[in-house]
Amino acid sequence: MPMDYQGRLQRLRTEVRRAKLDALLITHMPNVRYVCGFTGSSGVLLVERDRAVLFTDGRYMQQAKGEVSDATIRIVKGSPLLAAASGMGAAKGRAAGFEAERLPVAGWRHIQSALPRGWKLRATSSVIERLRMVKEAAEIELIRSAVQVGSRIFQRVLPSIRSGATEAAIAGKIEYAARQAGAEKMSFETIVASGPRSALPHGVASRSRLPSRGFVVLDFGVILAGYCSDMTRTVHAGKPNKRSRYIYQAVLDAQLKAIGTVRAGATAGQVDRAARTALGKAGLGRFFTHSCGHGLGLEIHEPPRLGKGQQELLQPGMVVTVEPGVYLPDHGGVRIEDVVVVTEHGCEVLTPTTKELVVL
Amino acid sequence: MPMDYQGRLQRLRTEVRRAKLDALLITHMPNVRYVCGFTGSSGVLLVERDRAVLFTDGRYMQQAKGEVSDATIRIVKGSPLLAAASGMGAAKGRAAGFEAERLPVAGWRHIQSALPRGWKLRATSSVIERLRMVKEAAEIELIRSAVQVGSRIFQRVLPSIRSGATEAAIAGKIEYAARQAGAEKMSFETIVASGPRSALPHGVASRSRLPSRGFVVLDFGVILAGYCSDMTRTVHAGKPNKRSRYIYQAVLDAQLKAIGTVRAGATAGQVDRAARTALGKAGLGRFFTHSCGHGLGLEIHEPPRLGKGQQELLQPGMVVTVEPGVYLPDHGGVRIEDVVVVTEHGCEVLTPTTKELVVL
Repeated sequence: MPMDYQGRLQRLRTEVRRAKLDALLITHMPNVRYVCGFTGSSGVLLVERDRAVLFTDGRYMQQAKGEVSDATIRIVKGSPLLAAASGMGAAKGRAAGFEAERLPVAGWRHIQSALPRGWKLRATSSVIERLRMVKEAAEIELIRSAVQVGSRIFQRVLPSIRSGATEAAIAGKIEYAARQAGAEKMSFETIVASGPRSALPHGVASRSRLPSRGFVVLDFGVILAGYCSDMTRTVHAGKPNKRSRYIYQAVLDAQLKAIGTVRAGATAGQVDRAARTALGKAGLGRFFTHSCGHGLGLEIHEPPRLGKGQQELLQPGMVVTVEPGVYLPDHGGVRIEDVVVVTEHGCEVLTPTTKELVVL
Repeated sequence: MPMDYQGRLQRLRTEVRRAKLDALLITHMPNVRYVCGFTGSSGVLLVERDRAVLFTDGRYMQQAKGEVSDATIRIVKGSPLLAAASGMGAAKGRAAGFEAERLPVAGWRHIQSALPRGWKLRATSSVIERLRMVKEAAEIELIRSAVQVGSRIFQRVLPSIRSGATEAAIAGKIEYAARQAGAEKMSFETIVASGPRSALPHGVASRSRLPSRGFVVLDFGVILAGYCSDMTRTVHAGKPNKRSRYIYQAVLDAQLKAIGTVRAGATAGQVDRAARTALGKAGLGRFFTHSCGHGLGLEIHEPPRLGKGQQELLQPGMVVTVEPGVYLPDHGGVRIEDVVVVTEHGCEVLTPTTKELVVL
């Protein structure tokens, strides 16, 4: 299924016009990729009303020709940013947007003097990130494939998750399985957090050994054809005591409640609130210390953020994680995370892995 | 061997004074780590003449307390950058430097209004990066350990490098061995480029299978205790023909010549020129399309850059890669890379791996 680069460029131009801009300088590489298909690591895309030009260097000549369809390719010797800034249309009194959250001050200053006479730079914020929030069918299929690969890796590595193994060894097995499954890379640093370390929301795999009894949080994702997956499962080494079972069940209930609220027209904050309310009723509210989820796609963290009070309306085609967690400093932590696609009347859960507590 | 945080802070303050600044806002995380020891992923270090304050969030409270010695720790709820900007000393007419190559325009604008009355922001460039160029003895030992781990991984994976294996599978084995050796992560995306792909200077491991005959470039590094290693070896599948042997030998000669010029007082450009001259004499000059090397340490690419015409003087304690390469589009490529420490009268090669052509 091909990506709709033409449609993206069209929608972007509508936004550019709406912001009263005559051009947009795109420097954030996932945004460059989204708009024109270029996957290289260095380049700047200039989008004007009547043309789009990708500025990159000689290393990427062949690659750019193969990947880019709706933009002209300009190979430059020096800085692609400088070339793009000086390459804008020459009419007077024009405004060019730039990505203010991405462009460092030094680069911004550097191009001021390169602008054609009469042009001004204007800060923009998340213009393309907002377009990227709603995924095309082809993008959803790629995310689905990445999520399925992630789930298969989890099944495959499960037998290696046992008392005495180091977290790093388990992470190594996950990453090796990802390579074997054809993943380009992991979408973030693999989290394997066991025993007391499971109470760290971001406990990247350490040299600690899995205890004979306690939670093990596994949180990882792969990148496949450019698109990210993300999943968390919490398993238990040894027989869980009553308290641990209670906590696990509470997080699972909260996650299911949150998934139950995902639908077009709900706000991002409502999903978060559903999980927070459920955990509050279970007496665990104060141990849920992060947001309930985030969008994902070409990047592992994209808008919308499913956080407290977020007013963003969910739309069909948005793809988000739902991942409440509870972290008790002396005891351990539990997090359960799926990827879901927002639909008109609810959502589709892409992650096929069971959420029953696995006891090792 | 402990790191000399006190000395670093002292040297930094000398630079801050020299730049006629009253404070420096440090936002680039490797720089924050270098100056105060904090290894978290979010935080801002404010260095003033008489105090240093690390602003970070609640997630890092315990970690910061354990890691940071010569700075006060301030846990904040909102943006650490905003807190740091508004937390500067209150006297009038003061100038605070910021890292212009790192700070995005949006962040810079955001803090303008938060500055205490009379304070101004001033762009700085690579202040801490320049201090980081010359490594302390403790840093050199950490890099040495990382380099040795890299070399052991190469030896261990060598038997798996054979015709028919996919590049990705070999990369997976390298990365798994790195995990087993205790590495935190790879220092960059692993390059395994075989056959015609070896002619790509940055051919990250793909699903291609190693041919029965041709070069295989392996370029990878690990991060161990925060410090990077980097090594490249080129091996040959099947019996190399005369031309391939000639190319390999020419690159090896150029690499040895370049290493021979590394010493305190030489310029970075001289090292590059030595390799370039050698390859030129071999008739391969135009196929050496990148710089000869780069510094490394907390980051995989640091100053100095051993590139054409670079006037930077090498100093004892600088740690750099020496990695000439030759890339023939129709044929394949060869690159050989070691890490060396600059000494008073020459250099010490940290990479113990042989550079004789390995034929698989």
